Amino acid sequence: MSKASRQPLAISMGEPAGLGPDLILQIYARRQSLGLPPFVVYGQRDFFAARARRLGLDLPLSSVEVTDAAATFKQSMPIVEIAGTVGDNPGEPTPVSGGLVMEAIARATHDVMRGAARGLVTAPIAKSVLYGAGFRHPGHTEYLAELCAQDGVPRLPVMMLAHEEFRAVPVTIHVPLSAVPTLLTSRLLDQTLRIVHHDLRTRFGVLRPKIAVSGLNPHAGESGTIGLEDLAVIKPVIEGMRHDDMDVVGPLPADTLFYPEHWRQYDAVVAMYHDQALIPIKTIAFDSAVNVTLGLPIVRTSPDHGTAFDLAGTGKGSWTSFVAAIRMADRMTDGSF
Amino acid sequence: MSKASRQPLAISMGEPAGLGPDLILQIYARRQSLGLPPFVVYGQRDFFAARARRLGLDLPLSSVEVTDAAATFKQSMPIVEIAGTVGDNPGEPTPVSGGLVMEAIARATHDVMRGAARGLVTAPIAKSVLYGAGFRHPGHTEYLAELCAQDGVPRLPVMMLAHEEFRAVPVTIHVPLSAVPTLLTSRLLDQTLRIVHHDLRTRFGVLRPKIAVSGLNPHAGESGTIGLEDLAVIKPVIEGMRHDDMDVVGPLPADTLFYPEHWRQYDAVVAMYHDQALIPIKTIAFDSAVNVTLGLPIVRTSPDHGTAFDLAGTGKGSWTSFVAAIRMADRMTDGSF
Repeated sequence: MSKASRQPLAISMGEPAGLGPDLILQIYARRQSLGLPPFVVYGQRDFFAARARRLGLDLPLSSVEVTDAAATFKQSMPIVEIAGTVGDNPGEPTPVSGGLVMEAIARATHDVMRGAARGLVTAPIAKSVLYGAGFRHPGHTEYLAELCAQDGVPRLPVMMLAHEEFRAVPVTIHVPLSAVPTLLTSRLLDQTLRIVHHDLRTRFGVLRPKIAVSGLNPHAGESGTIGLEDLAVIKPVIEGMRHDDMDVVGPLPADTLFYPEHWRQYDAVVAMYHDQALIPIKTIAFDSAVNVTLGLPIVRTSPDHGTAFDLAGTGKGSWTSFVAAIRMADRMTDGSF
Repeated sequence: MSKASRQPLAISMGEPAGLGPDLILQIYARRQSLGLPPFVVYGQRDFFAARARRLGLDLPLSSVEVTDAAATFKQSMPIVEIAGTVGDNPGEPTPVSGGLVMEAIARATHDVMRGAARGLVTAPIAKSVLYGAGFRHPGHTEYLAELCAQDGVPRLPVMMLAHEEFRAVPVTIHVPLSAVPTLLTSRLLDQTLRIVHHDLRTRFGVLRPKIAVSGLNPHAGESGTIGLEDLAVIKPVIEGMRHDDMDVVGPLPADTLFYPEHWRQYDAVVAMYHDQALIPIKTIAFDSAVNVTLGLPIVRTSPDHGTAFDLAGTGKGSWTSFVAAIRMADRMTDGSF
């Protein structure tokens, strides 16, 4: 075991009215049977104690310094205390706790950046709630990119959905479909592909990544007869990558690219928009895919679901994806890739 | 066995330089082990004899009238002769045979329309080749819609991809992605949904069809924050259908709609564009999905692949989808649904 792998993983608590805190407690309660590595939660002990009682979980919880977390983990769930107001009101989000939610993410990120924790797993937040508390970012990931800024320049975060050997990356994400053709520039595609290539090498241990790129239009434009972007934008970027000796192929028709036998031939498939990447990964792995953020100086994963207010506090949510997110962050930082 | 089910299925030969003729011959050779119903091929006996020799298949082939086809089928592959020029040149398409390819489709369609055959299965054509021979339609299906026109008005053909209990229908099809938001009108969506609902009842024996409609934008627009079409166009059409007592739900986020456990709850999912429907069906059924055309006065199915010029004449193509297309046309016309 390397030194790095003795550091805990950092988990930000996410939206307190959501499902995240439930899952963190339920997963901690099963840490042994699941064989999980030490983690430390950024949040508040009193809040987690109240949520644990609600769920009928009798768990020891300890406020700790991050440096003591790994040693504490076996006996008691280690929590780095974040100041702020938070109550145990599942399904009833309020901007009052927004400052604490944001600070938990910032502190966890900071501790990973300085090496006190080895990777970040984020529980889901509710952007719409945080906006009432002064959140000024398009999303969770963009906030992290700013927290990880170097010399004041935010990194380009790249979203990857991963399940076993299947990895899909959307180039554009939470934008209207009508905006996709305009937003899909050569520059964005080139940057994204280079980040995917780089992180497959450095984070996933793939010596020579093989990447497939989907077409934007049906049948990848069918030689320009169904839309021009495939030939005009996507193809030249791929040629540039190949010129730089990277094994990138495409644009390939998206409809036949995700058949598992085909998909499996690539270390990642880069798709042009949200549904083109997320439909296939969720079709084969509805509740076990993991969201991995590439392009950051830290490892960050998250479960592939939202706050699920209707399930919060009930004990009925599925922790499959959250456990997968912890395992993925573990493997990406313990040298096993 | 009803009278209708004693009629043969009609198969149009499709592009002679493509894979279609190979598959027709290979499937006929296995008619008994596959348990296939009688079919009649619209093409030329001499051409099929040459292709059979090339494939090393020793098969009896007979030129017949459609009325004799079912009785002939057990002993010899029945072929309705179509006049025109055609040679056995796999992988080398030429417009010279275009007239014959179009006429084979027209004759087969006509025989199904008049009840001499009970359903149409079309082998793939190559539009780009046919254009050189005067083909003036956007595609195979639009040509069929015109052949099936009633009172001079072509029907709206609706494409469904089907595999076992999974059925997906794209509302827009072979158009650039950038054109989808404009082409996706209330009128088109309404017409498409009503045809799907109608044909699920009449062709698939679903008494009260349950239909899910996907959103256009990521997360079905997330309450209008990621694009407006989901609320402005799709939702009102669904409300109109529900007002007419049809069980239609949506718009639902496309990424979570195609997980098999979810998808299975609906008799069909109607998606907004090509890849949104085809990615999930091909992800779960790469070479066994069937293309079914709804909205026509006849039953029409086709294999879910193209001419595959590189495989034509080699005997190495997969007949899985073609057999599935024959079986689907059979079930849709023999009263088993």
